[in-house]
Amino acid sequence: MENTFRLSDNALGMQASEIRELMKLASKPGIIAFGGGSPDGLRFPFAEVADIEKDWSEAKKRAAFQYGATNGYPPLLEHLRKRMEAYGIDMTDQSIITTTGAQQGIYLMAKALINPGDTIIVESPTFIGALASFKSLRANFEWAPLDSDGISIDATETILKRLAKENRLPKFIYTIPNFQNPSGITLSQAKRKALLELAIKYNVPILEDDPYGELYFEGTAADYKSIKSLPGAKDMVIYLNTFSKILSPGMRLGWITGPSKIIGQIEIAKQSVDACTSSYTQVIASDYLEKGYVNGYVDKMREVYHSKCSMMMLALEKYMPKEVSWSKPTGGFFVWITLPKNIGSKALFTAALKRNVAFVTGSPFTEEGKGDGYARIAFSNCSLEDIEKGVKLLGEAMQEVAAGK
Amino acid sequence: MENTFRLSDNALGMQASEIRELMKLASKPGIIAFGGGSPDGLRFPFAEVADIEKDWSEAKKRAAFQYGATNGYPPLLEHLRKRMEAYGIDMTDQSIITTTGAQQGIYLMAKALINPGDTIIVESPTFIGALASFKSLRANFEWAPLDSDGISIDATETILKRLAKENRLPKFIYTIPNFQNPSGITLSQAKRKALLELAIKYNVPILEDDPYGELYFEGTAADYKSIKSLPGAKDMVIYLNTFSKILSPGMRLGWITGPSKIIGQIEIAKQSVDACTSSYTQVIASDYLEKGYVNGYVDKMREVYHSKCSMMMLALEKYMPKEVSWSKPTGGFFVWITLPKNIGSKALFTAALKRNVAFVTGSPFTEEGKGDGYARIAFSNCSLEDIEKGVKLLGEAMQEVAAGK
Repeated sequence: MENTFRLSDNALGMQASEIRELMKLASKPGIIAFGGGSPDGLRFPFAEVADIEKDWSEAKKRAAFQYGATNGYPPLLEHLRKRMEAYGIDMTDQSIITTTGAQQGIYLMAKALINPGDTIIVESPTFIGALASFKSLRANFEWAPLDSDGISIDATETILKRLAKENRLPKFIYTIPNFQNPSGITLSQAKRKALLELAIKYNVPILEDDPYGELYFEGTAADYKSIKSLPGAKDMVIYLNTFSKILSPGMRLGWITGPSKIIGQIEIAKQSVDACTSSYTQVIASDYLEKGYVNGYVDKMREVYHSKCSMMMLALEKYMPKEVSWSKPTGGFFVWITLPKNIGSKALFTAALKRNVAFVTGSPFTEEGKGDGYARIAFSNCSLEDIEKGVKLLGEAMQEVAAGK
Repeated sequence: MENTFRLSDNALGMQASEIRELMKLASKPGIIAFGGGSPDGLRFPFAEVADIEKDWSEAKKRAAFQYGATNGYPPLLEHLRKRMEAYGIDMTDQSIITTTGAQQGIYLMAKALINPGDTIIVESPTFIGALASFKSLRANFEWAPLDSDGISIDATETILKRLAKENRLPKFIYTIPNFQNPSGITLSQAKRKALLELAIKYNVPILEDDPYGELYFEGTAADYKSIKSLPGAKDMVIYLNTFSKILSPGMRLGWITGPSKIIGQIEIAKQSVDACTSSYTQVIASDYLEKGYVNGYVDKMREVYHSKCSMMMLALEKYMPKEVSWSKPTGGFFVWITLPKNIGSKALFTAALKRNVAFVTGSPFTEEGKGDGYARIAFSNCSLEDIEKGVKLLGEAMQEVAAGK
């Protein structure tokens, strides 16, 4: 029976992501969870969703329980279109499709564009889930480093020039402009413009992944305006977003905004992948936008995450050894830690786990062999008390590792 | 800008499925919808789901709104395991993973096993959604015809023999044993055994897709026992099922049961595709099983679908021209109509649509060029009155087409 199931080349090349395996270790009760990128689990809009469902008409119930169109629940698509326009995105010749989480949005875009061996420009470091999607389609990566104000434009142009010369331009550039996962870094507005100019010059589209954009706690919305909303971006940029951080990740609900032609292709791909996104959670999300509950929740969570991030900054100042540095996010969930040479993040993980603290090691976010000097810590789903306690314990774990195992 | 988005070979090969394009035409209000395979839209367990959510503890709410494990919500997995055992399936060394609908189950299995050019044995005709998944991975098909008691064993063995000789055995055999979509045909218990023996002999696994198995309205559960529950099937059969017909398709919730090793591979594939299935709908489904609501709903729907099918049989007897024949389902949603030579199903579709009746033409369910003599009509989501009226109008449409356009 050994050979009954003969795996595809894709499957043979895919391994369980390190983050998930580590997270299994790190899911024991009582742990301080700096690991997963989960929203605050105590403050979801429980009451608002209960109100929404209580008010459902017979027609809405029927829509929620039945199959829906592959591109999405029409009233939700309409609300999202208005929301995109409110974000300053020109929706002429643009369409929206809802997806089973933004993860599916990433996968479907890649499925529509990637042949095995095709190249994608990604940030270094970048989101593990996107790398997993791209790897499962056997893409190659070109890694563009992040500066403190986002992706290096010079490095990106150097890559594009080389690939153009080799006649193998990338299928797209994947970027997370706001409070990037894992680095917490934000792409400056000036560099957004420069990146778009590069994309236009080389005719290479941008896949703009913006799950955290609304969760800024310094500056104003203008500082985080999407690349998609810039002049000239309309036909160059696919914009991904999700309800995971503005409602609930358990709903598995994201959306893609892009030129109608490519969204049509994504709709076809989605037919073969899961037929349609949950009608049930789409009807909830549609009412959630319609009733304006989203604004109250997002306003509240900006404050919540701001205080958590502030506490983490204080704790890092207090407890980190001098040789450690970290990013200073102005929104989102994550802080990226640069470790001194004598502390590897895998060794640190083991030492931290003994103290009941979990985080994510740097390696899965980067090119192979380049990430062990880094760690991602998330403040989003920890209490203020645990943040201080956890960072203190992390400091102790570092001392143990530095002292030489 | 024309070439900004350069499609993958997969995407270039994928077209909008005919059924969905036709269904767009056929979604005008007031239409008699024999087309889509939708459950009865007026009789979903609305009150039961409302009761379930009303009773949620804080812990359940938090689980419902948060990210979950890729393989599924643990209490739901436990209920499903018990359910599989109650179906007579030996769960030793077997695992379950929940999926975003059974459509995703099909896709993930194929993604784990199929390289471009690999072969799958499928029934002729078979489920359009499965064909779309397989095509999107560039699989080739060998078509095994259906007899009135299910897939032809002789034809399947002939195909296997030939492929073995050519050293290109199929990656799996895809079958829908109960009230098959689109034919309504059920695979006899004797032939299930024979099919499994063939699978063992050639060491080719079976992908058993069983969305309708509980919805029998003649005979007893023993007549519809899954291939997966037969002795010797444990390591040869992957079993797919869904909540779409026993709860709601809007929840997008299916599950796969199979050898733990291959389910582990599917879990890895799912990480890259949508990270996890909706926690929200999984918590609902878990309680729906736990509270036993499923039994009341399934019992009720067996009667509902039975009366609808009976009405359709009466109407077909009454209104179909003599040269037309059709399958006699003992469960499920579908009747498969064999048209006379002078009536093509595309021409019939146009004539029927003028009369406000929709169905699905035969072609998308079969090998190219082989399906136009057939039509699928679904009785599941029409009133008894509309079933009679719709079949009558379909008879008139046939007369118009036969009379020569």
